Amino acid sequence: MKNVESLGLKVENNVLSILDQQKLPHEEVWVESNTPDEMVSLIKRLAVRGAPLIGVAAALSLAKYAEDGASVDQLIEAAQKLRNARPTAVNLMMAVDRTVLEQKRESLTKQNIVRIAEEIFAEDVELCEKMANVGEPLIEDGDSILTHCNTGGLATVGIGTALGVIRRAFENGKKIHVYVDETRPLLQGARLTTWELNKLRIPFTLISDNMAGMLMAQGKIQKVFTGADRVAKNGDSANKIGTYSVAVLAKHHKIPFYIVAPSTTLDVKCVSGKEIPIEQREGNEVRSTFALKNCEVYNPAFDVTPRELITALVLDTGLVQ
Amino acid sequence: MKNVESLGLKVENNVLSILDQQKLPHEEVWVESNTPDEMVSLIKRLAVRGAPLIGVAAALSLAKYAEDGASVDQLIEAAQKLRNARPTAVNLMMAVDRTVLEQKRESLTKQNIVRIAEEIFAEDVELCEKMANVGEPLIEDGDSILTHCNTGGLATVGIGTALGVIRRAFENGKKIHVYVDETRPLLQGARLTTWELNKLRIPFTLISDNMAGMLMAQGKIQKVFTGADRVAKNGDSANKIGTYSVAVLAKHHKIPFYIVAPSTTLDVKCVSGKEIPIEQREGNEVRSTFALKNCEVYNPAFDVTPRELITALVLDTGLVQ
Repeated sequence: MKNVESLGLKVENNVLSILDQQKLPHEEVWVESNTPDEMVSLIKRLAVRGAPLIGVAAALSLAKYAEDGASVDQLIEAAQKLRNARPTAVNLMMAVDRTVLEQKRESLTKQNIVRIAEEIFAEDVELCEKMANVGEPLIEDGDSILTHCNTGGLATVGIGTALGVIRRAFENGKKIHVYVDETRPLLQGARLTTWELNKLRIPFTLISDNMAGMLMAQGKIQKVFTGADRVAKNGDSANKIGTYSVAVLAKHHKIPFYIVAPSTTLDVKCVSGKEIPIEQREGNEVRSTFALKNCEVYNPAFDVTPRELITALVLDTGLVQ
Repeated sequence: MKNVESLGLKVENNVLSILDQQKLPHEEVWVESNTPDEMVSLIKRLAVRGAPLIGVAAALSLAKYAEDGASVDQLIEAAQKLRNARPTAVNLMMAVDRTVLEQKRESLTKQNIVRIAEEIFAEDVELCEKMANVGEPLIEDGDSILTHCNTGGLATVGIGTALGVIRRAFENGKKIHVYVDETRPLLQGARLTTWELNKLRIPFTLISDNMAGMLMAQGKIQKVFTGADRVAKNGDSANKIGTYSVAVLAKHHKIPFYIVAPSTTLDVKCVSGKEIPIEQREGNEVRSTFALKNCEVYNPAFDVTPRELITALVLDTGLVQ
């Protein structure tokens, strides 16, 4: 396998490693993933997360498994396990299908699998560039932009989806400010987006999710950009829990709300958002250390924003208004 | 002073103590407040919180100070400090003014101050009963109700404001379910409301603030009840940060949104919500242990919900629609 490297994932001398995103921003710990089983557990515990990134990580994990001499049956079994690691983001399924499950058995050679995984990596970088170029003109000099969850270099192997658009505007010299939703319960905004923006020196302010409405009412937010984990055929988009609330607030305040996603996030088999499976996660993610122990909790990892609340979808293929 | 006791405050043999709400729900620690200065610091660090409760606590603290032999000048100075402990909740100012600052110097006797403080305590209990009776008919059998922050026995010396209404409906045999916003950043919902509902055996589910929109879209919430820290003359209401977002979400989903507040929370000197001062608190409350250290944070403790988003104000004096 070729050496490749992104902000949160790398292959170096045939060793596949991921930056443990659960330990950010306080510790930067790289963890090796030597088998698909290890990758499944890294994906499940969100050490590696972000819809595009988990797709690339799964493909590279299968490529490494093939290089390490896995049989065709072992590859298919591993691919199935990876495919089921998380149910909402469709990129994972698409990447696994393309690398292994949609191939004929006779095509499941080490060379083919490695080549496809490397293609997926390179394409993801390219998709990010295209989205950034499509979305960048939507940002005006002086804009303050609200974003939710993490959609940057840690969510992809390129410059990101929503955060990639924001970064491109900043690099083009537009004076912008980013409001970062902390994104309860797992705080990807507070932990990961702040870490990325700080590295990029893009000015930002961290807020609790429930402060966004007040900022909008004060006229402090001009645009909202978020990513997506699955976009249905009709444009309904599943994304990190809380995105739907932000979209409703944006509509109430007449603020444009944009979803930025690569074509690998589109799922034309889902006619509408109603068909997107929503992952329910463990209650202790919400209870954390502070809430009443064992109390009943609802913890959906995603919600669905209907197409009519989305001003435009920023895709690598262009703007869908 | 008479012995009095509520869920979060008590006077026993002339010793005034409060239940440290920062330690709930894991530890139930009562802390003595022997001087007004101690009460100021307990109020500032939110060991005692809830708009009605801090008013009563401040009045009792002045009564104890008078009993302990404070001079008129000392009482006035202490009253000023208490009045400035927190800027948004008007109950604190009203209670302090009534107990000390609006009195003539010759009326500032131990007997008078103790009597007024005891009246304020008894009235708060009574106000809660009245609000509960006014609001209870709004709840129908089978309703699921969303609430934000804590508005129960820990926020008052009676059964509460919004949570008192909910409790009354439950006690009247209505089958209800409560969705509890965790209420970032200080998690009064996750820590305090869950603790109270658990004691009362009222069924509830804890959620992150950003899940309320999804629940509303799914038809799982029939009513929203919250409290208020200050209600302006035109009905605009300041309450815990996040309340405004909930009100906008409720409007979008055509769900009734009720504010429950005693007349001690009305401030006719504020013509509209624009004039209500909003307390800004320390950034580390949002950063907590997880976010990037020292990053810029916006941390308003309250927001203002305009009257037009409030279906009705549930006051002790009746329903204002």
